[in-house]
Amino acid sequence: MLQAQELSNFSFGRGNRIISPEIKGDSVTFRLNANYATMVSLYGNWLPNYTDVIPMTKGPNGIWEVTIAAPEPEIYTYNFLVDGVSTNDPVNFMVQRDGTRYLNMLFVPGDRSKNYNETAHRGTVSYKWYDSKQLGINRRLAVYTPYGYETSNKKYPVLYLLHGGGGDEEAWLSMGRAAQILDNLIEQGKAVPMIVVMPNGNPNQQAASTIGLKNTALDMRAPENANAYVKSLVNEIIPFIEKNYRAIPKKSARAISGLSMGGGHTTSATILYPNTFDYICPLSCGIRESDHLDADLQGIKKAGYKLYWIGCGKADFAWPGTEILDQALTRNGMEHTLYSSTGGHEWKNWRLYLNTFAQLLFK
Amino acid sequence: MLQAQELSNFSFGRGNRIISPEIKGDSVTFRLNANYATMVSLYGNWLPNYTDVIPMTKGPNGIWEVTIAAPEPEIYTYNFLVDGVSTNDPVNFMVQRDGTRYLNMLFVPGDRSKNYNETAHRGTVSYKWYDSKQLGINRRLAVYTPYGYETSNKKYPVLYLLHGGGGDEEAWLSMGRAAQILDNLIEQGKAVPMIVVMPNGNPNQQAASTIGLKNTALDMRAPENANAYVKSLVNEIIPFIEKNYRAIPKKSARAISGLSMGGGHTTSATILYPNTFDYICPLSCGIRESDHLDADLQGIKKAGYKLYWIGCGKADFAWPGTEILDQALTRNGMEHTLYSSTGGHEWKNWRLYLNTFAQLLFK
Repeated sequence: MLQAQELSNFSFGRGNRIISPEIKGDSVTFRLNANYATMVSLYGNWLPNYTDVIPMTKGPNGIWEVTIAAPEPEIYTYNFLVDGVSTNDPVNFMVQRDGTRYLNMLFVPGDRSKNYNETAHRGTVSYKWYDSKQLGINRRLAVYTPYGYETSNKKYPVLYLLHGGGGDEEAWLSMGRAAQILDNLIEQGKAVPMIVVMPNGNPNQQAASTIGLKNTALDMRAPENANAYVKSLVNEIIPFIEKNYRAIPKKSARAISGLSMGGGHTTSATILYPNTFDYICPLSCGIRESDHLDADLQGIKKAGYKLYWIGCGKADFAWPGTEILDQALTRNGMEHTLYSSTGGHEWKNWRLYLNTFAQLLFK
Repeated sequence: MLQAQELSNFSFGRGNRIISPEIKGDSVTFRLNANYATMVSLYGNWLPNYTDVIPMTKGPNGIWEVTIAAPEPEIYTYNFLVDGVSTNDPVNFMVQRDGTRYLNMLFVPGDRSKNYNETAHRGTVSYKWYDSKQLGINRRLAVYTPYGYETSNKKYPVLYLLHGGGGDEEAWLSMGRAAQILDNLIEQGKAVPMIVVMPNGNPNQQAASTIGLKNTALDMRAPENANAYVKSLVNEIIPFIEKNYRAIPKKSARAISGLSMGGGHTTSATILYPNTFDYICPLSCGIRESDHLDADLQGIKKAGYKLYWIGCGKADFAWPGTEILDQALTRNGMEHTLYSSTGGHEWKNWRLYLNTFAQLLFK
């Protein structure tokens, strides 16, 4: 029988024997085969400014190369600039999608990043469609069920985990390593086995852009459509999940968290529906001061909750809004945790926050 | 509340206002912002030779552009060559992964490609892990369940759909549009609602490469490990699926198909286990003449089958092997269909074949 290559139209200009990135001890070497380029440099998101690049040097055989000190253990993204054009590393299979961009991954192993790795016992990730009458479209969401879900008869608590602006239902899985983080925490006995639901938070959109999808006909800027997504989350997505999964249909078994725009969805959903979630974890978002903020928070206080956990980096532009939320919770006598980290509005923080607060849920 | 961008480290050198590719009538225009490049060209897999490229022309503002006649309706992949380096189109979100490469998609709408589009009622795609005792690792597979699976109590027939060399458990979903094809055929009443299982056919591999995965310790070249994958498919994957899904556990409700290497797995599996599958669809692979071929096929004939459907392009290097299989089935008095198409060893054929034979299964 023929053992043929699926890859029939193999593209040229790609050096297949190159290793990139190569981590050796405390250094990382990046390489690119680009014999006809006049200038090649490296951009990585560990660099202090987004305009920083590291020049690469052309060596024999047209291979451009640079060796740098490895950044601290984490997952980073990088790409090359070839004569001014951003290009991926053709020999690095590891890619994350951030919105409309595909970025190469640099995984620096270490204590902080060890739960971002694959582990022995893994849950299932499913992409499922549900009908949204409120938004007038059917929509896709991603669902993580923990290892052993299929063979147990147990019911599980549910974390609703929301992405930020520019993201979609794949963001927490791709950039956020949510499945790996939960797999690791559950396997280590540090987190309760739980279902994690990652919906698409762009109410005009059916799913992460793909061929033939339609947008909703609703005008999302119209006043009557304010909070359309949050309403759909509570009135449509939660019932859909509790019908289709062995989910515990109780406030005490529901958590909500989101980053940036998804953190806004988290604060809005818990203010609008104070009887729905016992665990509330807004990340990198904060809140706006308003004349109804105290009344809004009192609604949550009155309904009761088990955890109000806020994560934000001190260099994040959302830090001032986070301080507003922190102070408002304090002046309303509401127990909460403000978990501050270094760094800003970035996935390295959001992975860290998930890895931290997931250990506190449903306990 | 802050409505912040998840995309904080936005990369430069990407022209965000450019549209590429732009289909207008019968032509397609490709554009790339590359002011500092000295040579930019377009490579697309619709071109006759894999060394063909189409030069692009630099216009005002450093935008390179070329307009071509649209190829016939299908899904194609393309990329740009910037001073000799292959790069993706930064403004085209639609990407397929083929092995280790990420390629931009060009979708030319038309009759032939209409089932590759999203449709109204969509099934669920799940990524699930199972333990392979035979291979000594746990491994990932992809499972498509048809629209309505979750809310029905029915049992379903199962198609085991295998990828080729260089592929993995995502290949049929990414390059092959298998979920969209089944969604469309089932919605139109042309195919029976079925489960589609897409395992990873590389027996040394746990899953499509990701961080921290291990290879099996088995030596796959050792004689005792011949057909290791096919044995695992029948003795481990099928029982796993029939335990974890509402699958009809009968020969008459099992189909097997695969392309290239997966076609080899299809012919091997049905020869080794003639009592397992009633529907046999090897694609772009053929078979090798041997002194036991007739006896092998007689085993299948004796066990009985409902469909033997072979797909191959006349320009495929697997065509001669396909003729050997066709003739061997004929001389053994075995009913079968040889579906020949134009073109060669390429996804445009494999999508066409799936879209064709899936209508014949379980009827």
